[in-house]
Amino acid sequence: MAAQEDRLKDIIGHAKEYGFVFPSSEIYDGLSATYDYGQLGAELKNNIKTYWWKSMVQMHENIVGLDAAIFMHPDTWKASGHVDAFNDPLIDNKDSKKRYRADVLIEDHIEKIRQKINKDVAKGLKRFGDDFNEAEFRATNPNVLRRETEIKGIEDRMRDGLVNEDLAAIKQLIVDLEIACVVSGSKNWTDVKQFNLMFSTELGSVSGESAKIYLRPETAQGIFVNFLNVQKSGGMKIPFGIAQIGKAFRNEIVARQFIFRMREFEQMEMQFFVRPGEEMKWYEHWKAYRMNWHKALGFEDNAYRFHDHIKLAHYANAAADIEFDYPMGFKELEGIHSRTDFDLKQHETHSGKKLRYFDPEINESYIPYVVETSVGLDRMFLSVLTQALKTEKLADGSERVLMALPAALAPYKVAILPLTKKDGLPEVAREIMAELQLDFNCQYNEKDTIGKRYRKADAIGTPFCVTVDHQTLEDKTVTIRDRDTMQQDRVAITELFQIIDAKVNMRHLLKK
Amino acid sequence: MAAQEDRLKDIIGHAKEYGFVFPSSEIYDGLSATYDYGQLGAELKNNIKTYWWKSMVQMHENIVGLDAAIFMHPDTWKASGHVDAFNDPLIDNKDSKKRYRADVLIEDHIEKIRQKINKDVAKGLKRFGDDFNEAEFRATNPNVLRRETEIKGIEDRMRDGLVNEDLAAIKQLIVDLEIACVVSGSKNWTDVKQFNLMFSTELGSVSGESAKIYLRPETAQGIFVNFLNVQKSGGMKIPFGIAQIGKAFRNEIVARQFIFRMREFEQMEMQFFVRPGEEMKWYEHWKAYRMNWHKALGFEDNAYRFHDHIKLAHYANAAADIEFDYPMGFKELEGIHSRTDFDLKQHETHSGKKLRYFDPEINESYIPYVVETSVGLDRMFLSVLTQALKTEKLADGSERVLMALPAALAPYKVAILPLTKKDGLPEVAREIMAELQLDFNCQYNEKDTIGKRYRKADAIGTPFCVTVDHQTLEDKTVTIRDRDTMQQDRVAITELFQIIDAKVNMRHLLKK
Repeated sequence: MAAQEDRLKDIIGHAKEYGFVFPSSEIYDGLSATYDYGQLGAELKNNIKTYWWKSMVQMHENIVGLDAAIFMHPDTWKASGHVDAFNDPLIDNKDSKKRYRADVLIEDHIEKIRQKINKDVAKGLKRFGDDFNEAEFRATNPNVLRRETEIKGIEDRMRDGLVNEDLAAIKQLIVDLEIACVVSGSKNWTDVKQFNLMFSTELGSVSGESAKIYLRPETAQGIFVNFLNVQKSGGMKIPFGIAQIGKAFRNEIVARQFIFRMREFEQMEMQFFVRPGEEMKWYEHWKAYRMNWHKALGFEDNAYRFHDHIKLAHYANAAADIEFDYPMGFKELEGIHSRTDFDLKQHETHSGKKLRYFDPEINESYIPYVVETSVGLDRMFLSVLTQALKTEKLADGSERVLMALPAALAPYKVAILPLTKKDGLPEVAREIMAELQLDFNCQYNEKDTIGKRYRKADAIGTPFCVTVDHQTLEDKTVTIRDRDTMQQDRVAITELFQIIDAKVNMRHLLKK
Repeated sequence: MAAQEDRLKDIIGHAKEYGFVFPSSEIYDGLSATYDYGQLGAELKNNIKTYWWKSMVQMHENIVGLDAAIFMHPDTWKASGHVDAFNDPLIDNKDSKKRYRADVLIEDHIEKIRQKINKDVAKGLKRFGDDFNEAEFRATNPNVLRRETEIKGIEDRMRDGLVNEDLAAIKQLIVDLEIACVVSGSKNWTDVKQFNLMFSTELGSVSGESAKIYLRPETAQGIFVNFLNVQKSGGMKIPFGIAQIGKAFRNEIVARQFIFRMREFEQMEMQFFVRPGEEMKWYEHWKAYRMNWHKALGFEDNAYRFHDHIKLAHYANAAADIEFDYPMGFKELEGIHSRTDFDLKQHETHSGKKLRYFDPEINESYIPYVVETSVGLDRMFLSVLTQALKTEKLADGSERVLMALPAALAPYKVAILPLTKKDGLPEVAREIMAELQLDFNCQYNEKDTIGKRYRKADAIGTPFCVTVDHQTLEDKTVTIRDRDTMQQDRVAITELFQIIDAKVNMRHLLKK
């Protein structure tokens, strides 16, 4: 656990030091669970977006993009069910006036029991470690077994309460477990209440026109309400998809874990419209495709896994997550959902407008079924940092910090480094830069020793360093250093474009 | 006027028909002053963003990007002055309960006087047209002159009221002009009140933590609060810039003119930090640079003009707009502002944190001055549609609708068209597409006659059509048709990449 926390801290520290991610409004001591992407983070995030957009839209004849507004007609969220059912169960302590998520209070209580178990196991192994291994000890020790049963009982009661929306039962569980408020220490709780997670605001101000609207809690609905507009104006034939990247907002009570759970976040979503009855085929197709897309980045294969949902959301008939091995453990990175015709049907009912597709192949009109793929862009960003950032031991015994980003995602593709600040080397370096920057994002750097500049480039993931030295003045050659192998080759300036393009061009990723 | 309205209607109609822009939440009868970008609009908008980002960030050694959150600490907006002074003057009619912007009521009244003048002029010219031309008539006719004086008097009083924030004087002007509510017909008005244009919402829900926050009304402040984070982590030396693209929100009372004035809109802003005293040099530099950037797109030069501000905002010591000739006339497309050290100074005061830069060249620490360039992305989008969309008379007497987009901005770069749906032509067409789409956004189309498909490609601005015909099967050549010249050349499939790249690659725009 401590190692996990350290790992997350390392990533957060590195992200801030090099300009990937800053706490938002830091000069005002920050805004809770909000972060700003710095100069390198903005580039990395853009490159992730581009990779997704090109893969999903440009590479698919039957998928097109969309960029719907954050503001939508409020009836959208009645139809989607968010006004009535997008809630967290909250409870207040009457003495401290602190408010908690009821399920988180219970989970924290479970976590404490787990810590007791771990303590028992550690103690037991110290004493009987010659006779038992850990798994054997856990499977046989009566104290451990009793506590595991206790946990299971709590989890069952909590799940029942949440699934049946039985708020009184959840309150009773908190009372029975004698959970106390960490601030007041008291067990004096209010009833559990549902709290809607949507942010609301007031639109317009002309009397009669003023209306409560919401910041969208997901981008998907922007696609559903535009389904027919896109299908008709684009002449799309089923099966086809609509892809969108955009901000969404959720008023999370407990937002945490860096950029993993923020109140303002960005989604990359694709809704794929299919003939009813064909949704499971496409669900399997997109599950496989999306997993392959992540793995094409070249990180460790075992950093990703599927998690099939047992309990399904009300709109789904199949759902799986692609989970990533974050510093906090395996967590959802992307969701693939077979959403049935739930959303389009709801919008038909609430808008009174037909949302049907006439299928010329079977001569039939129907509401399409939908398979959704939905990546959290910020989670993707964190997954990339998690896999890319490492400390490497070098042959000479020293260490280097390396950000082993896929070349196509790296903020800078090339660092342009004049060996010294004089003898006309900066001028030649800038000439080379003027040509290369038409195609690649380049960074010019003449500060520090060349060794330090190489280390800096490694730490921010720049795939190539091009060094201009005195020989350059004589024969128009430079050295080009590869980030991963640290090998330096002397090449003609005229060769640079091709060497760099062969590694950093996104077409190589798209081909996988 | 009628011609202008028709022109805007044409653009709106074309934008909807082909999937550039849809009214938001249209199935719920739309959300006022909000629009969604459709499948082609999303691509065009992305390409405009890329052009701006590459020009401003990638092509400038001393400019870096940023992607700050929409949510910011609320003190940000106290410091910037938006909480206290970002208002519109509103007035309610007591009988109809309708609310109006006081200045718009007065402007509408002025407009009515102007219409009377135009009527007088038309009548006069009909009667005395042999003796006077229009300019002479306007300069001499006593009725016209009296009304012009009346208008000037009203405008002076309104400006005084707005500048001095004398709400009672504005109310008095409405009373004196005997302006009536169009709904109730009554002159029974409330006092004029200031109405803040920021959208607000409530963050979090844990007691004690809940806070009123705002949707940012401009992206600039995200840059200012991050000024030191970027400068330090990026090792930036003055002069340097921070660029950002992002959404901003203003609760406009009168939002109108399609995507020109929306409540949710997108900005492309760059804040350039300079040594105090050098701001006018940089202000002139960026004015010229930004005008050149727009003109590099190749549209009519006289579609753009500068408008220097006489009355400056409280934070500025120089300001100019780049205006574009929209269907509604010349209006602001981009603002270039010398913002002095106002914002950083305010943030120092309100945050209690130093926002100074130590300048090693002059061995001095100071608050930098700032020159801002700020483009409305949606306005840029509308300017591109305005210039690109045209109806062309062809040699044979027929007409074609042409979207003459700069090739680098076009949603699709190539349309891939098998001449017929049989004989294996679609298969060959898709093979060509599979290779080209790694680098270019391609559209496959096998519906309709080839002529209709060419017209469709013209109407959405696709620079090239590649047609696969029976000769292709024999000698691996295709025809490639140029959108603008409509000329068709027969070329080898292997030559396609270079022909297309030579026209559509954004590097050609960046070089200008």
